Amino acid sequence: MSFRTIEWRDDTVIMIDQTRLPGAEIYNTYSDFQSIAEAIKGMIIRGAPAIGVAAAMGVALGSRSIIADTHESFFRQLDNICEVLGRTRPTAVNLFWAIERMKRVAEKNRGGTLDTIRDALKKEAIRIEKEDLTICKNIGKWGATLIPEGATVLTHCNAGGLATAGYGTALGVIRAAHEAGKKIQVFADETRPWLQGARLTAWELMKEGIPTTLIADNMAGFFMSRGEITCCVVGADRIAANGDTANKIGTYSVAVLAKENNIPFYVAAPVSTLDLTLADGSKIPIEERPYSEVTHIKGIAIAPAGIRVRNPSFDVTPARYITAIITENGIVKGDYRSGLRKISGT
Amino acid sequence: MSFRTIEWRDDTVIMIDQTRLPGAEIYNTYSDFQSIAEAIKGMIIRGAPAIGVAAAMGVALGSRSIIADTHESFFRQLDNICEVLGRTRPTAVNLFWAIERMKRVAEKNRGGTLDTIRDALKKEAIRIEKEDLTICKNIGKWGATLIPEGATVLTHCNAGGLATAGYGTALGVIRAAHEAGKKIQVFADETRPWLQGARLTAWELMKEGIPTTLIADNMAGFFMSRGEITCCVVGADRIAANGDTANKIGTYSVAVLAKENNIPFYVAAPVSTLDLTLADGSKIPIEERPYSEVTHIKGIAIAPAGIRVRNPSFDVTPARYITAIITENGIVKGDYRSGLRKISGT
Repeated sequence: MSFRTIEWRDDTVIMIDQTRLPGAEIYNTYSDFQSIAEAIKGMIIRGAPAIGVAAAMGVALGSRSIIADTHESFFRQLDNICEVLGRTRPTAVNLFWAIERMKRVAEKNRGGTLDTIRDALKKEAIRIEKEDLTICKNIGKWGATLIPEGATVLTHCNAGGLATAGYGTALGVIRAAHEAGKKIQVFADETRPWLQGARLTAWELMKEGIPTTLIADNMAGFFMSRGEITCCVVGADRIAANGDTANKIGTYSVAVLAKENNIPFYVAAPVSTLDLTLADGSKIPIEERPYSEVTHIKGIAIAPAGIRVRNPSFDVTPARYITAIITENGIVKGDYRSGLRKISGT
Repeated sequence: MSFRTIEWRDDTVIMIDQTRLPGAEIYNTYSDFQSIAEAIKGMIIRGAPAIGVAAAMGVALGSRSIIADTHESFFRQLDNICEVLGRTRPTAVNLFWAIERMKRVAEKNRGGTLDTIRDALKKEAIRIEKEDLTICKNIGKWGATLIPEGATVLTHCNAGGLATAGYGTALGVIRAAHEAGKKIQVFADETRPWLQGARLTAWELMKEGIPTTLIADNMAGFFMSRGEITCCVVGADRIAANGDTANKIGTYSVAVLAKENNIPFYVAAPVSTLDLTLADGSKIPIEERPYSEVTHIKGIAIAPAGIRVRNPSFDVTPARYITAIITENGIVKGDYRSGLRKISGT
């Protein structure tokens, strides 16, 4: 890949600024956990797996700035760091999964010196990042088997290299099919209000040389009804035990339209996106983001001042609309409740 | 209403510039038919009934500039004017309906002097405008009976006063329900790429004091699935004999989502929107508009340069998704083929 989403370098964290793409390719350097929390909240970095990596690196970075005489004090402060990072975004479960994993590593190393713990945390954060790339490649490998030669694949939002440590989940499937030599093309929904499709997916796929057509969100149904879409692949922010999937707002609509037009609808996500503690999707918290994302684009007003706005950032697609869930461990279809439990190894 | 969409004044045509709303309320004055054709093409004026009125006024205005020694020469030049105006936008049938009506009036007055014909054309254009307002009020009267007390009504695009000579079709229904004292509120889809919902519907309804919430197009399904939408009302650009309805891109998606969530989906349109010469919607021409509507907003790029774009401006909603079609002559349900024929008086 010709860009790097997030990286640990010289005890700082470097991220590509996703609020500035595609106009400018700018890398920001972060040296404290508070600014990483702000970066997650402000969507400098976004995408469920990528914010998991960012949170892990935030914990590791935060641990280095803790001044403590005792282990108790260190762990109390570490808990606080985890809490701040956990409050950034509510929907994607990978954030909480990564923070919990970091906490467990700290706990495991409680017997060592504070610097041993700090070092273990840094190694773990880097490991989460490296693992994520391998996971995405495996998701791609499994998913590519579902993409027919000559397919036109519709995707929503950006579940690409930018949403992960690299390669991507939904775009990982597309990349793997492309790398396998299948002649495919992509239709990318622009994904209002934040325009992840127009700004990020279009940019990533152009760099990759995969033929891509940008459309407005409300055009997806038109192209489906005309027989121009072979299948849909999207990412996920949280998947409940029964397969109900929270993902970027608009995913539910794409899934309903796909079902109505007999088009397969696939979700591609790492096992860390599963939240088997939730029986179904109704309990997944849905973040509502600022009004200005809808009323303004790049600071320019596109609606009358004072208009009321709703801006839910995610929706939940009931499992019955999902043809299959593609994970790094394989593809789950049919009975998601048992299939997801099995594939997660729990 | 506190604005005027289009008006014949002192042998010029005045239109509110819909490309500038809601930021600026600017009225343009047109004194030749070519600039009216450009205004229709450039969406200074838009909305099926409104472009019908604009085309009629364009014919009347054009007839005044014809220099002709003979009736034959006059009618040849008039045909040319009609052709130029007819080539502006392909989907809305009201454009062709209005032009045909103007041609018939000219033909009927062929026995008179050229100035008699010119005068008849001017009177007819003004009559079309006045009639449209009455028609919209009748659509509103019928449609309001379908809107329950306390309803939250979803609308897509702008089928309002700005899309007609005033009052509106879909927004006419909403206005009439509001005027009847029903406590209703509106969810307005922003309607990418041209943002008719964010720019025009939000503006119109705020002026009217009807509580309105702006959402991105891909949020409509979310609110439907949450039980927050009572019914949907949209306009139409062309309705085939079987009830299949062409309307702004995204209408089909709203209709499919409404059906999936058991929410009534209504189309509100004048009889002039019926095209009973088409057996079904498959033959309705769908305009594709410039790429820049998708890649740029107010001149600012929101996608990488060189990305491929598709920009169909309309889609066709099959009749099976439409709960009822509301016209000025009454409401058609069930067997659209016979119902539409009957209501059109043919």
